[in-house]
Amino acid sequence: MKARWVLPISAPPISPGAVLVADGRIAAVGPVGAIESSHPSLDLGNAVLLPGLVNVHSHLECSLLRGFGDDLELFPWVRRLTALKYTVMEPADFEVASLLGAAELLRAGVTCTADCSDNGLAVLRGLAVSGLRGRVYQEVFGPSAADVPASLAGLAAKLDLLQTERPAGRVDVGISPHAPYTVCAELFGACAELGRARGMPLAVHIAESPAEVSLIRDGAGPIAEAMAARELPWSARGTSPVRYLRDLGLLDLAETLQLIHCVHIDDDDVDAMAAARVGIAHCPRSNAKLGNGVFPAAALADARLRLGIGTDSSASNNALSVLEELRFTALLQRAVERTPHASSAAALLELATLGGARCLGLESAIGSIDPGKQADLAAFSLDGPEHVPCPDPAGALVFGPAPGPAALTMVGGRVLCRDGRVASFDIPALLDDARARAARLIARF
Amino acid sequence: MKARWVLPISAPPISPGAVLVADGRIAAVGPVGAIESSHPSLDLGNAVLLPGLVNVHSHLECSLLRGFGDDLELFPWVRRLTALKYTVMEPADFEVASLLGAAELLRAGVTCTADCSDNGLAVLRGLAVSGLRGRVYQEVFGPSAADVPASLAGLAAKLDLLQTERPAGRVDVGISPHAPYTVCAELFGACAELGRARGMPLAVHIAESPAEVSLIRDGAGPIAEAMAARELPWSARGTSPVRYLRDLGLLDLAETLQLIHCVHIDDDDVDAMAAARVGIAHCPRSNAKLGNGVFPAAALADARLRLGIGTDSSASNNALSVLEELRFTALLQRAVERTPHASSAAALLELATLGGARCLGLESAIGSIDPGKQADLAAFSLDGPEHVPCPDPAGALVFGPAPGPAALTMVGGRVLCRDGRVASFDIPALLDDARARAARLIARF
Repeated sequence: MKARWVLPISAPPISPGAVLVADGRIAAVGPVGAIESSHPSLDLGNAVLLPGLVNVHSHLECSLLRGFGDDLELFPWVRRLTALKYTVMEPADFEVASLLGAAELLRAGVTCTADCSDNGLAVLRGLAVSGLRGRVYQEVFGPSAADVPASLAGLAAKLDLLQTERPAGRVDVGISPHAPYTVCAELFGACAELGRARGMPLAVHIAESPAEVSLIRDGAGPIAEAMAARELPWSARGTSPVRYLRDLGLLDLAETLQLIHCVHIDDDDVDAMAAARVGIAHCPRSNAKLGNGVFPAAALADARLRLGIGTDSSASNNALSVLEELRFTALLQRAVERTPHASSAAALLELATLGGARCLGLESAIGSIDPGKQADLAAFSLDGPEHVPCPDPAGALVFGPAPGPAALTMVGGRVLCRDGRVASFDIPALLDDARARAARLIARF
Repeated sequence: MKARWVLPISAPPISPGAVLVADGRIAAVGPVGAIESSHPSLDLGNAVLLPGLVNVHSHLECSLLRGFGDDLELFPWVRRLTALKYTVMEPADFEVASLLGAAELLRAGVTCTADCSDNGLAVLRGLAVSGLRGRVYQEVFGPSAADVPASLAGLAAKLDLLQTERPAGRVDVGISPHAPYTVCAELFGACAELGRARGMPLAVHIAESPAEVSLIRDGAGPIAEAMAARELPWSARGTSPVRYLRDLGLLDLAETLQLIHCVHIDDDDVDAMAAARVGIAHCPRSNAKLGNGVFPAAALADARLRLGIGTDSSASNNALSVLEELRFTALLQRAVERTPHASSAAALLELATLGGARCLGLESAIGSIDPGKQADLAAFSLDGPEHVPCPDPAGALVFGPAPGPAALTMVGGRVLCRDGRVASFDIPALLDDARARAARLIARF
């Protein structure tokens, strides 16, 4: 295939560029004419072809809840979300939601997603059907020590099923002890042990909101009050959320641990995360929409951190587009920090591709257009008046208006989306089903 | 025409809704079936139909300079812009740039733009050819009193030409004394007098950057130093930029004055602007990208202010989409102020339509879908997986992923864009010409 611009990420842009794919992997990349090009029908024209975007944090099971609480703050929002998930939604809803999310990801040029889900099997099936690459972190909850045996038994059964059903080589399985206010210290420890025993990575929501910081440091604030009302045990830890996890030994999981959000972190936290080589999922639009705050610019620019971009769920965001996240975080940091030079478009695109791959420990397989890596690719057309002129295709994607749906989304050499049309499953039937199911949920908002 | 959702802005959403247009004006709006619908071929399907978006601040003449300095801060950026505009660009470049900008606006559902230009005639011709509604504020510069007679003579000649060539009833003419650091107090006064004499509105860039605040209040900082180096006279005014204009008598122009940017304003400034009923152009993405700061949330929510949304130029932004501005400012304010409830999607859409019309003093003619107003309309399809479910079409436009190009852009009953295809002029020929001209400019960056 060929395109006006090819951005390998690991090397400078090539224009016009070609990519040769063989057996699902990149065989060669270079200037048009200098290398053989596969897929002769894929002449992408005035498009930019880059590695498939990597989404390091999603909750596809929530995709039927888009827009369900646009004006709520974090905790009223969590209460409504929980009520819908546990008292209104049915098992089939989560499968449809996962497929709907997968369709949105493919149209956004996302080729890999790391998903945290209480309904891991529904998400795994969505990834299997859609052709996406990814990871399913099965969520586990247990805020008091007494919950631990039952939580672990339920978790083990789910992990067994996920391991059996997963499309091997394309989807792997992890464990997500949800967050410090829903998982007690004992359960965190047991999950770390289980992850080591099964060779599975972990993911934890951490340092998302000021309320969480108050809970962990002082045992005070709205989460502490809600926990007390439910008679859940908690004691002030006198430290930051990230150092609380370090004190529990979780950072020893190193590359196999992903920390999600990390909005409220200080210099010591950054040093600890860098030394431990843990992955960090930055979810700018969700953090903004829920009023949680601004990810620190110093961390965004810290090359020692294994930082990737996550969309979070379409219940909080309301979009599953890694490019939309980039476009927002670039301008947000400039507005707040007043440092236009600090966040170049090229550095941001690296975060969304190779950065995401590193965050997930997958950088040897995906994240750049290099011979031997999986042929996971995305292309966006820059053919409209709103992308003329285009002195820099990276700048056009990050600072220009949103491009349309992906001109191409390819995973392992398979075309999953072309000119916005999803090729791997039936979208009109899915949307009818999703609309009907959502109507039932909307009636209960 | 009819659509799944009609948002009149002045009234609650109608679903499904229809609009009847006659003689270029809205004749009726209501539920499908309850009113007759014009344009039977315009069944817009799963789309939201709303008043055409109003862009209260653009510089279409700069559209060939998109992406020319993505990582520069305000003043290095201004120096490069000025060098290109005054030493490299040719008269025909400004005409092509204006048409390119007009094409982008039409695809973004913008039906009216208020443009500040040093090459007003080029912009006026772009509006005339494209069919857009708008206003051309002819820019004038003159930082020292000695410049005033020549500046005024040049201005008068340009205004005469603009008045002669304008498509009456669709495009009107104004005056833009550029900014306090390029226009001396004497020239501000003379422009106000000229505006009154000719019945023309004024527009001024004000309170854009911290450097401008330092100049006006203290006579210090980078702009003061640059002015001193050019031996331009200046004395510290000991006040804010907005109150400096008030002290010059400019706020007495009331509804006929537009203040552009207003990022650095205090409560007294807000009160002064509200009392004077001047219009305010809020340009969130440009302010962010250049590192100028965050528009105050209190002003954004102040119902007394005649506030509209502007894109600024594609040289600083790099997009001419009012919806992109809304989507960014909504999340920016939530991230910084942590107040999710303070900026509802419906309130933001009102800013982008009726708010913009009020800012320009055009609210009796445009800005809402009401019988008797001009048939200036925009529609966006919400048919893709990324907009399912859609419990609130306003929320989908503001918090969801960017919709594609406008399904419909109509000005005065004339279809100017349909499903992203501009109908009023030849886009492929324009883009070829624009790319060739931009290549010459890019070589000089």
